[in-house]
Amino acid sequence: MSAVSNTAASVTDLYLSRAGAHWQLFDRQDPVIWGSVDGPLDLDQRQRFIADGFLAFDRLLDPREVDGLLEEAKRLAATADRQSPEVIAEPNGGAVRSIFRIHRSSPPFQALCRDPRLVNLARQILGSDVAIHQTRINFKPAFDGKEFFWHSDFETWHVEDGMPRMRAVSISLNLTENTEFNGPLMLVPGSHRVFVQCPGGTPQDHYRESLRKQEYGVPSREALAQLIERGGGIVAPKGGPGSATIFDCNTMHGSVGNLSPSPRINAFIVFNSVENALEAPFGGMRPRPEFLAER
Amino acid sequence: MSAVSNTAASVTDLYLSRAGAHWQLFDRQDPVIWGSVDGPLDLDQRQRFIADGFLAFDRLLDPREVDGLLEEAKRLAATADRQSPEVIAEPNGGAVRSIFRIHRSSPPFQALCRDPRLVNLARQILGSDVAIHQTRINFKPAFDGKEFFWHSDFETWHVEDGMPRMRAVSISLNLTENTEFNGPLMLVPGSHRVFVQCPGGTPQDHYRESLRKQEYGVPSREALAQLIERGGGIVAPKGGPGSATIFDCNTMHGSVGNLSPSPRINAFIVFNSVENALEAPFGGMRPRPEFLAER
Repeated sequence: MSAVSNTAASVTDLYLSRAGAHWQLFDRQDPVIWGSVDGPLDLDQRQRFIADGFLAFDRLLDPREVDGLLEEAKRLAATADRQSPEVIAEPNGGAVRSIFRIHRSSPPFQALCRDPRLVNLARQILGSDVAIHQTRINFKPAFDGKEFFWHSDFETWHVEDGMPRMRAVSISLNLTENTEFNGPLMLVPGSHRVFVQCPGGTPQDHYRESLRKQEYGVPSREALAQLIERGGGIVAPKGGPGSATIFDCNTMHGSVGNLSPSPRINAFIVFNSVENALEAPFGGMRPRPEFLAER
Repeated sequence: MSAVSNTAASVTDLYLSRAGAHWQLFDRQDPVIWGSVDGPLDLDQRQRFIADGFLAFDRLLDPREVDGLLEEAKRLAATADRQSPEVIAEPNGGAVRSIFRIHRSSPPFQALCRDPRLVNLARQILGSDVAIHQTRINFKPAFDGKEFFWHSDFETWHVEDGMPRMRAVSISLNLTENTEFNGPLMLVPGSHRVFVQCPGGTPQDHYRESLRKQEYGVPSREALAQLIERGGGIVAPKGGPGSATIFDCNTMHGSVGNLSPSPRINAFIVFNSVENALEAPFGGMRPRPEFLAER
């Protein structure tokens, strides 16, 4: 790929996006596992993470431990201030879709973010100490939880938040069972090795709408078809409370709506390497608020 | 259930719906398999149809026969007149979602509607000669095909088209493979034995919007949760071209959106008993056009 100078940030942009009318696929410029920090993943798991861009754990936490987190998540939804920017409702009003920054507002989730079973996974993959980049609960309510279209988190975090390199991971922890029918996380194996340059620009303060329904930074259908058909198809790990998926910040993922009577409630915790501190957004706009990207 | 006199049609309404603010569940007042016309279903299949309200066939037609129908379906979509009422686009414009009345506009689908492998299934279940009530192709395009929320076809056909009894069946024939990821038909086993009275009324000429996104005749979430949780959960038959599902007109069904690169193209053929001819709509409005309900 061609490196492009970002005039706003005065640094070289390794992952230019939303800079024209067309899409393009670029090779990833970063390792997938950084350095050699010891951790819980064995060689086979590390090789699968490098190849696929994610790893699913049938039981990362004990289901009984998760009971308390689920109760806390329900309490946060029931008492959520709909006017707070950290609380996102489903399109057309309705149920709570997401609550952000739970590592600040909720002691049980704050403790979760410090749990060595999660932190040591992130440290091993990112090859350094880590810091929280973002946390949220996605509720995907029964019958009305809407889809999340395919996206690379890194594309947004790079363009809108100024994350320079692909050196962050998300852990999606299932607080309720994720089934075939309640809109489980879907991932495209191998997609993390390719950067999908998205067409278009980014309006200022775009995030208010994009958290409900994304319209900018959306990969083109042609790019997605190539990723899925030339790559490893689509995978949707299922599992009960306490199961979890860790995935690279550039792994293409999404999920369909929930037409089942069971809510799909997942906690997302994003760890960033301390050596990958945020800069000015590469898209040239002002940074998004800290509930979306800790600075 | 209490029978209610329908002033518009001057007949007794066995399945009153959209007549108030509340939902209610009523027992079905009709048999599931009518009479004793011989046909291709053996005793086990008939018993499963009576219990579940549907039967899935791994290969109702040979996949090679379906090749021609798929080509024809693509040709119909490519040449569709977007101004025609029989052509429905996805919400927000975009790709063709459905084309109705293909038994009139397309010789290959006309022939399909007369195929004894389909007709004799319908005759056996409905216990009489049968006539086409409605035909359509649902395209569920790759990446952009949107969900169909849960519904009983009979509720709409009764209220909006004047179908008096539960004596009709749909055959959904897969023209492309139906997978976990392209929004396959989902059904609630056993739901056909219960009539879900929906809240609300029906605006005149409501169908123009309802074919994109239904807002009236939508079962309440509480009713659905009861049906699914007390019944047999949710089932989504998968299968390649030529596989098919036959289901009762009152079986609750729906499908999620398609985020995969593979379109989910199904032909739907609805057979009604000739002894179940349409009357005035039980909701009191004028009948919908014949592309939705042959009279």
